[in-house]
Amino acid sequence: MSSPLLEQLIEAFRVLPGVGQKSAQRMAYHVLERERAGGQRLADALAAAVDRIGNCERCRDFSETPVCPTCSSASRDVHQLCVVESPADRLAIEQATGYRGLYYVLQGRLSPLDGIGPAELGLDRLASRLAEGEVSELIVATNPTVEGEATAHYLGQLARQYKVRPSRPTHGVPLGGELEYVDRGTLSHAFGSRSEMS
Amino acid sequence: MSSPLLEQLIEAFRVLPGVGQKSAQRMAYHVLERERAGGQRLADALAAAVDRIGNCERCRDFSETPVCPTCSSASRDVHQLCVVESPADRLAIEQATGYRGLYYVLQGRLSPLDGIGPAELGLDRLASRLAEGEVSELIVATNPTVEGEATAHYLGQLARQYKVRPSRPTHGVPLGGELEYVDRGTLSHAFGSRSEMS
Ligand SMILES: [Zn+2]
Ligand SMILES: [Zn+2]
Repeated sequence: MSSPLLEQLIEAFRVLPGVGQKSAQRMAYHVLERERAGGQRLADALAAAVDRIGNCERCRDFSETPVCPTCSSASRDVHQLCVVESPADRLAIEQATGYRGLYYVLQGRLSPLDGIGPAELGLDRLASRLAEGEVSELIVATNPTVEGEATAHYLGQLARQYKVRPSRPTHGVPLGGELEYVDRGTLSHAFGSRSEMS
Repeated sequence: MSSPLLEQLIEAFRVLPGVGQKSAQRMAYHVLERERAGGQRLADALAAAVDRIGNCERCRDFSETPVCPTCSSASRDVHQLCVVESPADRLAIEQATGYRGLYYVLQGRLSPLDGIGPAELGLDRLASRLAEGEVSELIVATNPTVEGEATAHYLGQLARQYKVRPSRPTHGVPLGGELEYVDRGTLSHAFGSRSEMS
């Protein structure tokens, strides 16, 4: 190749999900040929995000402040807490439904074989939160996969331990599917028609 | 969304070819969740590339030095000059064939309706190069599209003006296709069996 910097750029693009050698090459050429200003903006945005975005102390969602805007908002209903696996799931629910409660982002799901237990998902902090007594409904919106269901079962038990009512969006989200990929209408319906967990 | 920096990052990813809102979101989350070091490397590589990669004075390919390594190499055959539309096409030929001559990268193709004429493709500089008398064969490897064929015709005429023999890889590359997307074997064969332009 004609430039070591270009080779490094192509290699660096491969860190992105679903980007192989050919797409990485196309991205590098595209930026250099037509989008230098946009490439510089992406470089700046990446550096700032990596440096300054951490996790909210309350909900574990991505945040550039110790407590995220949602958790510090005065207009959210503190009696409802919705547990999701990922920031993408949280965003999908926020965009698809009229939910006005708070969230708790696990940043994963229980997966004993991968060494991911309650501690790795911050469930001790979730327990303290439930112990505070403000939350009356825990909406368990983990994905309907095997691991997501096992996580939901665990969260249901945890809620009952603190006299909090656990509910789960059940209808509509296809088994094995992920919230993030479900269309808005389906997700909104599933969320609205959630039922108490047994 | 929970973070303006995250929103900016998602927006910035959309500058990449084929990346819509959903993929941009997935890229941003992926970097923040699992690839912070890789994200920082990509930020650095992008900034360096945008800042320091220009075009080679001789061949117009991307280069971080005034003259690229290929043009300044003592081991390339200066009597053969291969004209391609893009750096990606040049790379495809370099990787697929045993070609040891030099290149000229148009960074486009003749397209009068878009205001791209001979001047925009640096054909004046190509003409001076042919006038120098060192080149004996001009391999016209523009794409077999309507605009690529028109460009090839123009280049064939230009070569003859300077008593340079124009040739064109003909067989194998599907009509309307682009070199960049042709498999190595086909490209290698097409390049090897090029015929003199009429
Ligand atoms: Zn928060
Ligand atoms: Zn060069």
